This record gives sequence, structure tokens and C-alpha cells, in this order.
Amino acid sequence: MPSSIAPGPRLTRLAQTLPATVPFVGPEAQERAMGHPFTARLGANENVFGPSPKAIAAMEKAASEIWMYGDPESHDLRHALAAHHGVKPENIMVGEGIDGLLGYLARLTVEEGDSVVTSEGAYPTFNYHVAGFGGTLVKLPYHDDREDLPALLDKAAETGAKLVYFANPDNPMASYTPGADITVQLDRIPDGTLLALDEAYVEFAPAEAVPEIDINDPRVIRFRTFSKAYGMAGARVGYALAAEPLITAFHKIRNHFGMNRAAQAGALAALADQPYLAQTIADVAHAREEITRIAAANGLKALPSATNFVAIDCGAGAELAGQLLKELVARGIFVRMPFAAPGNRCIRLSCGRPRDLAAFEAALPEALAAARDAVG
Amino acid sequence: MPSSIAPGPRLTRLAQTLPATVPFVGPEAQERAMGHPFTARLGANENVFGPSPKAIAAMEKAASEIWMYGDPESHDLRHALAAHHGVKPENIMVGEGIDGLLGYLARLTVEEGDSVVTSEGAYPTFNYHVAGFGGTLVKLPYHDDREDLPALLDKAAETGAKLVYFANPDNPMASYTPGADITVQLDRIPDGTLLALDEAYVEFAPAEAVPEIDINDPRVIRFRTFSKAYGMAGARVGYALAAEPLITAFHKIRNHFGMNRAAQAGALAALADQPYLAQTIADVAHAREEITRIAAANGLKALPSATNFVAIDCGAGAELAGQLLKELVARGIFVRMPFAAPGNRCIRLSCGRPRDLAAFEAALPEALAAARDAVG
Repeated sequence: MPSSIAPGPRLTRLAQTLPATVPFVGPEAQERAMGHPFTARLGANENVFGPSPKAIAAMEKAASEIWMYGDPESHDLRHALAAHHGVKPENIMVGEGIDGLLGYLARLTVEEGDSVVTSEGAYPTFNYHVAGFGGTLVKLPYHDDREDLPALLDKAAETGAKLVYFANPDNPMASYTPGADITVQLDRIPDGTLLALDEAYVEFAPAEAVPEIDINDPRVIRFRTFSKAYGMAGARVGYALAAEPLITAFHKIRNHFGMNRAAQAGALAALADQPYLAQTIADVAHAREEITRIAAANGLKALPSATNFVAIDCGAGAELAGQLLKELVARGIFVRMPFAAPGNRCIRLSCGRPRDLAAFEAALPEALAAARDAVG
Repeated sequence: MPSSIAPGPRLTRLAQTLPATVPFVGPEAQERAMGHPFTARLGANENVFGPSPKAIAAMEKAASEIWMYGDPESHDLRHALAAHHGVKPENIMVGEGIDGLLGYLARLTVEEGDSVVTSEGAYPTFNYHVAGFGGTLVKLPYHDDREDLPALLDKAAETGAKLVYFANPDNPMASYTPGADITVQLDRIPDGTLLALDEAYVEFAPAEAVPEIDINDPRVIRFRTFSKAYGMAGARVGYALAAEPLITAFHKIRNHFGMNRAAQAGALAALADQPYLAQTIADVAHAREEITRIAAANGLKALPSATNFVAIDCGAGAELAGQLLKELVARGIFVRMPFAAPGNRCIRLSCGRPRDLAAFEAALPEALAAARDAVG
């Protein structure tokens, strides 16, 4: 062995170059720093309305069975999802949230120097995983507060991209692209490029947001989750829908015993309770209207939302939005904001229960005045 | 783009070469194939005695809070573990079971062609992750039904290995190496080699099994879990203990929001209930004696065990052991067996409750006779 080698681990060349940044700081860290909990937890796009009581009951029941590993095949959940979507179980990959599945996707496709196309300000955890496998991110701006699929595909062709990330509806702007406008773009996906269609929020969107895509189309992988409309972010259950060969590839690298057993049971029960899902969607729609009303009452403009959160345009650029975020956080209201221009003229607020929105409504005027004072 | 590229994903060169094999088939898949559940689930080294009632209560309570993501820093659990082990929180990495952490470790250290040393028949999920990142596994035989640390370190020096895997106590043979015998080997770890010390079962072992290792020693990373002694396999909570620079590297690649919120709460409560852990360890010790007695009554020899499972030497090589396994499974008793010679002369049975062992005891004579008939 060369004498220059030190005791201990030799990290890969890639691992040595990775930054220590993390995609998001959690609200718990902010609460610890403040010394008290948030009054309203509306920053993480969580679904404050929570899961179906039947899902809660299933998870409670599973707690006493937690000595058993979860089924590594997630058989029951996968079959239920297949029936729900009218596809084969072999078209479905269940994993530890969309985050976990995006990590697997990056690992399967991205080698050092490979191009991957996304939008400036789109989901940072996707970028984190791509960078983590050495991919080169090419970012295009939003267009009218939407991710611009035709432009992303043009850039994919230009750069020979392995992956194109496209969220519909979008996070953080809450906009959506009609499904028909996506379907018409499929033939423009370059050979050798995979479209990663993140539909985490699609249950909240109008029906027309959902594109028709043949499950056997090798050009697309879709991602869905139990974290948003089903109200189970803390359970970590997401799934991918794709042609069977790509799903098979996931099985070669995934953590086969990675799924929490209670989470599997909860997701299965949540999926079966579609009436509760419909009620949640209605509750969220009402909360969107309330947020829009509260924003308008304070002279701010809520952007149209197809999700369970709303981007509120503060009307004066990133500095005011950032200051308003700080003032709200200081008043116990956990919100976040888009990372990149021009979205960062906004703050982003999850749809809350009446008591959450009442706390927001009570805090906003003073927070806004303080933010305007601070920005000058 | 070259015209030879097809529509759809281009997997990495490595991903294209990976086999479709999986480390383990779950008991649920076997139950589905049989059409009925197992009478006794004793094959997966699960802890049938289950978690502390306080952990169950914590997970039940967390079910209704599951709309919130888990704390991405696992702050409370990490701090409690630090206090428990007398180290800093920065020395602890909480992850989705040891399986998930081994995957991260392989990713951090293994590049294509890198040598990694382990034992023939040792934990296959470690091998799965190493192969998944392109590592070249070098395997040494067990010595007296133990993993042979001095020989593993010699081989690491010879091959310039990035990692050496060593489980103490061992799975699948249930043997252990005295901690003092490990400590004395530390200075023989080659520069640039990291010893991955898997202590998944260590709470069941005699106190002398635990080696003294400075937490700041860069040559070692230790793995512990809530899946075994704490009875929470389905929750997916493991942790690593290592020097701070290595823990920091995990943060650069891990799935930051990968931890199930209820699992975090359950693990915290389980750790706090050390009296329950002591009772579990006593129950398991009693079950080991029972298994030894049942084996002897059938003319078989149980190997000494420092874990919550027992390897039973069937006395006639792999063929009889494999057939006995099949006969037990056919009679509703889920067991597994070591994969490699000479361990595969044994079947491996988890320590069960009295009713589990009664079912095993009732099935064994007939299963053994049938196995001997079949092998001839």
C-alpha cells in the first residue's frame, strides 16, 4: 500500500467532492433553535388534514406487529395500486417516498458527467440525488410560473440528457400543465432520455392535469406518493409507475427490506378509503380559497393552485418575500419560499385547517408591516 | 444523438450488469405460495417477543401525527443514543435499518473494481450493496463456525480492500468473538481499510463480546439496530457509530427525509425502556435453552448462540439440512439455513415464544424423518 494512505476510510472520488449542503432544514430544527414549537406548521407541503382514520387504525394495529419485517415485495400494496391504476403489479415500484425513488432512479441512470435537465427552482431533492451520483444539472427558467416542458425537452436533445425532471402540478409554484399538453410532447422526448414525471400533488389538481401515457411507454416514469393527498408524509411511502423493464431495474439496487411495515399497512388502508381522499381534496380546495382571501385582504396576490399549497406573490421581489418569511416564522407560522427567481418573489404556504389559517391571518398584517419596514 | 440509441432509459454500465437476484425471499412470499400463513415465524431472525409496550404506545400515538415528515436530523433519537453510548450526537448516523446504512457505506467507499473482504456465507445484504456499487467481493471461509478477523485483515492488506465486513456476534452461525480479541486486531487494520463491525445482535451476547473501540478511531464503523433486541424489525431503524468525519460523509448522500416518523418515536421509547430490553434478553436466553433441548431430544446438536437465533447442526451435510428446512416449512414452521459450507449443515431458527417453540417441537420429529427418507 502506498505510504500516503491514512488510517480509515477511503471515500470514492465522487464522495470526496460532494458538498455538505442538505436540501431542506426541517421545522423541528427551527423549533429547537427558537425554543418553542410553531403555532401553524404550513411550510413543508404536508397535508395538515392527515390520513384517513382507517389508515391511522391500520398503523396503530401494525404497531404491535412491528417485530416482523415488512413484506419486501410490498405485495398487497403493489397489487392494490395496480388495480387502482389499471396496470400490472410489475409496473409499480413501491419505495421510501418519492425522495427515495428519485435516489434510486439517479443511481440507475446517472454516471459522472451525464447531463440531467430540470428547472431552476424545481425540486431540490431531485438535484441532490443527481449531483450525488455525479450528474451535471442543466437548469432552465420557469415560464409564466410553470416548468416549461417543450423547452426542457429541447435542452435534453441538445445535451443528450439521461433524465428530464418535470413536476405536474409544480412545486413550489402550484401551477399545472394540462395533461393533453404533456401527452403531445411525448414524441419529442429524445431517444435515450427518460422523462421523470413527478405527480406528487396530482390528486389535488383538476382531472385535466393528468396526461394519458401508455404504461409500457419506455420514455416516461411517473411518481406518486402517500405523503400529500393521503396525508402520510411521515410514513414514507411513494411509488413509481413505469414500463416493466425499468421497474425490474429498481429491484436490482433497492433496499429490499426498506419499507416500514406499518407504513405499508397504512397506505393500503388509505388507498381503500377514496371517500376520505375526496373529503381531503375538498377541504384543501376550501383552504386554498381562504388563503387567497387572506392574501388579498392584505394586498397580496395568491397564485392559482392545483396543489395543497399556495404561492403568495408578495409583489416586491425576493428580499421582501424572504423578510416576510422570517417575520412569519418569528410569529410561529412555519412557511417556506421558492429558492429561485422569479418564484422567490413569493412565500409558499400549505393548506391548513381553519385554526392554522386563523393563526396565519392573525400574524400576517403585523409580519407584513415588519417585513416592509425591514426591507425599507 | 447516435441512431443506435433506443427510446427510454439508458442505464449506467454498472446497472446493466447487475443480476436480478435478491438477498432474501420474504416469508410473506412463501405464505402466498403455500396459500396459508406460517404457524411459527422463526426464519428471519426477528424478535418474536416484540418491542416494549412503551414503544408500541409511542408508535400508536405517532400514527395520528403521521401527516408530518419525520425530523430529518433524527435529533431526539440521535441525542438519546449518544447519551446511551457515551459519545457525541455527531458520532451517530441514524438510518433505515442497518441494511440502508450498509448501502450508504458501500456508496461512500466502493468504486468499480474496489476490493471488499467478507466471509463466505456472511450477511448477503452487505454483499448485495457492495456488488451494487461495483465492488469486488473477496470471501474467506469461516473458521470453527466463526468469522475469522485476523484472516480477513490479512486478506484486506493483500487486496488493498476498502472495506472489511465482520459481524459480532455472527449471523448465521450465532457465534461470537470476544471483544478483547477484536480490540487487539485494530492495529492490524491496513491503512485505507475501514472495518465495518456489524453488531446487530450484540445486546444478546455476553458483555465480553463488546470490544473497546475509541469512537474517534477512523478505522472502524459499528452498526447497531432496533430490529433485533428491541423487537422493531418492521420499523427500519438502525444506526452507525463512527468518527465524526465519516458520519459527516453519510449526510452528503443519505435520504434526509427517509425516516418514518413513528419509527423514530418508537425507537426513542424502546431505548428508554431498558428493563424491558433486559426481560427480552432473558426470554431469548431461555428460548435458546429450549431450542437446544428440543434439538438434543431429536438427536441434533444446537451450536452455542450469542444471538436470538440458533444454528442447529443436522449432522449430515447441506442436503439433509436443506431437506429438513423444506419439511419444516411444509409443516408451517418458517426457518432458514446458512447459505455456504460448512454452515449449511445447519438450519437456523429464531428464538420464539413458548407457543412458537411448541409448534417447532411438535413438527420436528416428523419433518426430520421425512427429510432423512427423502435424502436417503
